[in-house]
Amino acid sequence: MKRIGMLTSGGDCQALNAAMRGVAKCLFHSGEDLEMYGFLEGYKGLIYGNFRMLTPADFSGVLTKGGTILGSSRTPFKQIREPDENGLDKVEAMKQNYYKLRLDCLVILGGNGTHKTANLLRGEGLNVVTLPKTIDNDLWGTDMTFGFQSAVNIATDAIDCIHTTAASHGRVFIVEVMGHKVGYLTLNAGMAGGADIILIPEIPYDIKKVIDKIEERNKNGSKFTILAVAEGAISKADAKLSKKEYKEKMKNYKYPSVSYEIAAKIQEKTGYDVRVTVPGHTQRGGSPCPYDRVFASRLGSEAGKLILKGEYGFMVGYRNREVVKVPLEEVAGKLKMVAPDASIVKEAKLLGISFGD
Amino acid sequence: MKRIGMLTSGGDCQALNAAMRGVAKCLFHSGEDLEMYGFLEGYKGLIYGNFRMLTPADFSGVLTKGGTILGSSRTPFKQIREPDENGLDKVEAMKQNYYKLRLDCLVILGGNGTHKTANLLRGEGLNVVTLPKTIDNDLWGTDMTFGFQSAVNIATDAIDCIHTTAASHGRVFIVEVMGHKVGYLTLNAGMAGGADIILIPEIPYDIKKVIDKIEERNKNGSKFTILAVAEGAISKADAKLSKKEYKEKMKNYKYPSVSYEIAAKIQEKTGYDVRVTVPGHTQRGGSPCPYDRVFASRLGSEAGKLILKGEYGFMVGYRNREVVKVPLEEVAGKLKMVAPDASIVKEAKLLGISFGD
Amino acid sequence: MKRIGMLTSGGDCQALNAAMRGVAKCLFHSGEDLEMYGFLEGYKGLIYGNFRMLTPADFSGVLTKGGTILGSSRTPFKQIREPDENGLDKVEAMKQNYYKLRLDCLVILGGNGTHKTANLLRGEGLNVVTLPKTIDNDLWGTDMTFGFQSAVNIATDAIDCIHTTAASHGRVFIVEVMGHKVGYLTLNAGMAGGADIILIPEIPYDIKKVIDKIEERNKNGSKFTILAVAEGAISKADAKLSKKEYKEKMKNYKYPSVSYEIAAKIQEKTGYDVRVTVPGHTQRGGSPCPYDRVFASRLGSEAGKLILKGEYGFMVGYRNREVVKVPLEEVAGKLKMVAPDASIVKEAKLLGISFGD
Amino acid sequence: MKRIGMLTSGGDCQALNAAMRGVAKCLFHSGEDLEMYGFLEGYKGLIYGNFRMLTPADFSGVLTKGGTILGSSRTPFKQIREPDENGLDKVEAMKQNYYKLRLDCLVILGGNGTHKTANLLRGEGLNVVTLPKTIDNDLWGTDMTFGFQSAVNIATDAIDCIHTTAASHGRVFIVEVMGHKVGYLTLNAGMAGGADIILIPEIPYDIKKVIDKIEERNKNGSKFTILAVAEGAISKADAKLSKKEYKEKMKNYKYPSVSYEIAAKIQEKTGYDVRVTVPGHTQRGGSPCPYDRVFASRLGSEAGKLILKGEYGFMVGYRNREVVKVPLEEVAGKLKMVAPDASIVKEAKLLGISFGD
Repeated sequence: MKRIGMLTSGGDCQALNAAMRGVAKCLFHSGEDLEMYGFLEGYKGLIYGNFRMLTPADFSGVLTKGGTILGSSRTPFKQIREPDENGLDKVEAMKQNYYKLRLDCLVILGGNGTHKTANLLRGEGLNVVTLPKTIDNDLWGTDMTFGFQSAVNIATDAIDCIHTTAASHGRVFIVEVMGHKVGYLTLNAGMAGGADIILIPEIPYDIKKVIDKIEERNKNGSKFTILAVAEGAISKADAKLSKKEYKEKMKNYKYPSVSYEIAAKIQEKTGYDVRVTVPGHTQRGGSPCPYDRVFASRLGSEAGKLILKGEYGFMVGYRNREVVKVPLEEVAGKLKMVAPDASIVKEAKLLGISFGD
Repeated sequence: MKRIGMLTSGGDCQALNAAMRGVAKCLFHSGEDLEMYGFLEGYKGLIYGNFRMLTPADFSGVLTKGGTILGSSRTPFKQIREPDENGLDKVEAMKQNYYKLRLDCLVILGGNGTHKTANLLRGEGLNVVTLPKTIDNDLWGTDMTFGFQSAVNIATDAIDCIHTTAASHGRVFIVEVMGHKVGYLTLNAGMAGGADIILIPEIPYDIKKVIDKIEERNKNGSKFTILAVAEGAISKADAKLSKKEYKEKMKNYKYPSVSYEIAAKIQEKTGYDVRVTVPGHTQRGGSPCPYDRVFASRLGSEAGKLILKGEYGFMVGYRNREVVKVPLEEVAGKLKMVAPDASIVKEAKLLGISFGD
Repeated sequence: MKRIGMLTSGGDCQALNAAMRGVAKCLFHSGEDLEMYGFLEGYKGLIYGNFRMLTPADFSGVLTKGGTILGSSRTPFKQIREPDENGLDKVEAMKQNYYKLRLDCLVILGGNGTHKTANLLRGEGLNVVTLPKTIDNDLWGTDMTFGFQSAVNIATDAIDCIHTTAASHGRVFIVEVMGHKVGYLTLNAGMAGGADIILIPEIPYDIKKVIDKIEERNKNGSKFTILAVAEGAISKADAKLSKKEYKEKMKNYKYPSVSYEIAAKIQEKTGYDVRVTVPGHTQRGGSPCPYDRVFASRLGSEAGKLILKGEYGFMVGYRNREVVKVPLEEVAGKLKMVAPDASIVKEAKLLGISFGD
Repeated sequence: MKRIGMLTSGGDCQALNAAMRGVAKCLFHSGEDLEMYGFLEGYKGLIYGNFRMLTPADFSGVLTKGGTILGSSRTPFKQIREPDENGLDKVEAMKQNYYKLRLDCLVILGGNGTHKTANLLRGEGLNVVTLPKTIDNDLWGTDMTFGFQSAVNIATDAIDCIHTTAASHGRVFIVEVMGHKVGYLTLNAGMAGGADIILIPEIPYDIKKVIDKIEERNKNGSKFTILAVAEGAISKADAKLSKKEYKEKMKNYKYPSVSYEIAAKIQEKTGYDVRVTVPGHTQRGGSPCPYDRVFASRLGSEAGKLILKGEYGFMVGYRNREVVKVPLEEVAGKLKMVAPDASIVKEAKLLGISFGD
């Protein structure tokens, strides 16, 4: 008899349901006697004992369904360690609910913040298996996260749409892509969409170089330029600021986001008409793409296998085309970033794409 | 022997190429001796004599291609009547280029502004046939414009993506949809995307009613609400302002667009987390949907037929499922809007959708 | 208090759920006291009393969902009037179940066959309101049926995919499109996909003319040709056969479908490599397109309104861009077909498309 | 000064143009003095000296374009070594055209057959760099080929569409997926589409086990079953036949393809309604997905780099997430297949998917 709890935490993304279905299919199909509980709205559900029982029927038809059937919430790691407004010790509350339900294991799906908390719970003696969910692909210990490829598709669609308008009107267009502090999403969507300039946090840009590239294209007869700009893109000047100085600067920041700042500077220097498009939250929604469905199903089934074998304390990840288990303490608190000299970056540069560096 | 000029003016949209291909296929296929000239970047090309010859090969493979192979530009009607910075009389210049090329007819594809200028040229004695291009579907004299259905699809995709995130996080989400001063695009995308509240310019909203609907949904257990808001949506209070008062108000407007104002007000009154997504220019780009391809091809071929018969001075439109010719002077300067008591609005209300009125 | 039964019959298609959601939203939102029953697997459920109660929750999230939440079955009109294998009188059984549940009205969604049976039930004194569901768009009394535009999109996608391969390899490709005995689907998908030849049941083809068109294209340098062929396409020779002669001929028919016969004949006469692709049932599946979602929702809500007003015996249809009610006896047993001289056919011919006639 | 020839051979697939654009962008962007020739319709163009010069403009807008701008043809390896109908020695002819144009290198894009011929040319002293193109992903020496993920998407779309119909009608549905003698495409599309049974060439099936799975599903209340069947799927009995015996058997084979045989057997044994859908050539057409665009661009740019460095005789492949060069003689004549005990197969089985073994 296994008693399993499951929760999804942090920003939602595609294939969360596919991954949970993978875990559930594996466990229910194993013949093992089983009880499965879904905690609602992420760690909140575990803290306040808000859950419902899950049966095979709950996982029927969810392979292609975006979002998460359990709901999610952002519960920052910092908050987790602080008592709530009624003085409740959240970590203690989670442990009590875990023991009250006599769980054998918690399956936790989430990104970086979620993994820090999962590792904390592991340290507190709970059995935990995690799955790497994020459109940012910034989780340490795994080559790939689910949600990423689906988000690449949506961001690329946006660039494709913008392309026809940019070409028809001879304008400079910026598409701002998600990804927090890392550039995988922007880099891949930018290359897939045929962007001429790609700006990512890992490679601070020099606005002069950006403008040079636009001018060069115009000189060569290309009347339009497409920029894929990560929401976390940063200029060389800003990258040199101390954390405090940067914070100070952002206090009086007058742009909705970095793309608008870049647009303003290009427009000012060149006189070109520059437009910004922000696909925003659409990038984490909708039906998962086939790649993510297969990928999340594979990870989910391996998580199920770990549970059946009683191997806890791992994130199920993906390395060199194999599903692997990665000790949680290796994952938590680290960020995977695009290396500025990664081969994909070099290849992008071979194609003539400018990173503004 | 027919000598035809063609141009696309105003914001680009899907199926412009499909429509031009329709005209060209019809004319080249007719056996009539033919010369076809494409003016580049809208009326600009006609003013400054910037054109290239078009052959059947130019229309190969363009049925599915977004944007316009001729390029476009926004040349406001007001500007058309003013001399350029070198003192050139633009209308006179267009006439001269028309006569210099000994054209039999100009085929002009565009929206409202474009039609005003087309009608002006008609009044000046030029032979003109026009085609109704706009994602806004706001052209008088035709039930439908090409670009509209493709834009509905893109805006609906955005709402679909937002839906999964809204449901997972229990948030209020606003998707801002294009359409200038009319609500067709928002109304259709909103209904297709299952929006709970739809705000369009033709039906000014009362923010209290909007909030009531959100509260009612929450009371009934729906933890999230989706709003489809037209970029031209307007509150009842603002709708009562005189043009001057409104202009004055907008001088100090602190929001990027009306959606952000609505979001701020909802958040302030309810404390709910409200997010805004603006798909923006993606709505006018990308490959035309099958509906628009068929529709634009049909209109294009009928435009070709008119030219072969020497019937000029018409927009080719669509009424009661038939392609029709509409005198240009009936079209120019008028706006087609959603009637607040249109059956589609009533049906939306029957479905429980709130218009905030 | 209203007690409503609902069923979907015949081949499934897109937007069935959207239409039922429209009916349900309208009724549940009206404030009227309501009980709603869904009969499972079409008329079978009504005959054998197989149903379940439907609540607002059943219609949550189904707007974008393909298929039908009630299940469907093909129950030919002829069979309806015959007793089942246990001697049960089916019509009588349906009436008894209707009265046993004290229904005020049956909402029936279906195509041609379904409408014959619905009209029979009306004649037997039951209150019936129907909705026009079919990818074939062949229902009398309405300009449009839901499912049609979604099916056009899928068939067009198939032609688009084939296009790149045909062009790369210089082959003749046939895409066989659904539609039973009518050609709307093939005509629209063919035009949207840029097919060179379109063969539909309403315009019998002469294989010589088809081959002439291919040869003409080759002579003009186009190395490939795309044919969109309706599953019900028929040659001029076959169209002249009596029903008996045709039946006799089809007894020894050696091709899987008409497309293969046409392919064989082209290959034999020209020596060209001809390939056939049959998207088949994919055309009636998957998520409904935005057009169908809006359209089905509108019809559904109007059906709800009719029920609230107690107006029975109608199909809710669409004419001249307005939702209308059409007496069932006018609809049943009639087929809407493409007129060989319809303007859309003429326009397709203006574009240079051959119908092989 | 570099003089480069390029050709695409074998069945077309998505991202061929993206890959060629990658090569071209890298070379044109390098500043190296350059002449580039495109041979038309695969090796045919090289044999008969049918080519055209390629400039940067030829690669504008092709990133998203399916098919190949150079055309392709299937020229079996066996045929390559035989003289043509006029007695022309094809290999000698290719060498002569290579030398006549004073080429530094041939860039060849193709699958298994293409690579055999490329290796032959390498053996004959020509400088060759190849790129792995195939939707089958069956090329030795690389983890991935371009076209594969796009084809997975299309095949998955087909299964998704069939899913809604299968569920609505309670039927058994077979979707036949491409892949020649290997099962990657079927395995991935099957898992992505939620197929219940997946039959691939590498794991011969026992029809009894297939039927058992269907019956088991029915017993558990699932009224429908989806099979993803590879076009090369083979039964255990057939797999034991000698090549000669198998050939003999296939002489009198009465089914259009293996899926129809499986359908007939299931129907015969169970009485269930079984339908077959064959998406066919649609799987290799249409616009490449973002994954393939990025992937093909990366490989293309690395091929360009090899050429600039004068490193010839390699296929540019992908291993462990890095682009690598693989000696052509290692690649030619070998087939990469799904290992029956590959982890992805085991994971699929953990999910409850049957392989009929």
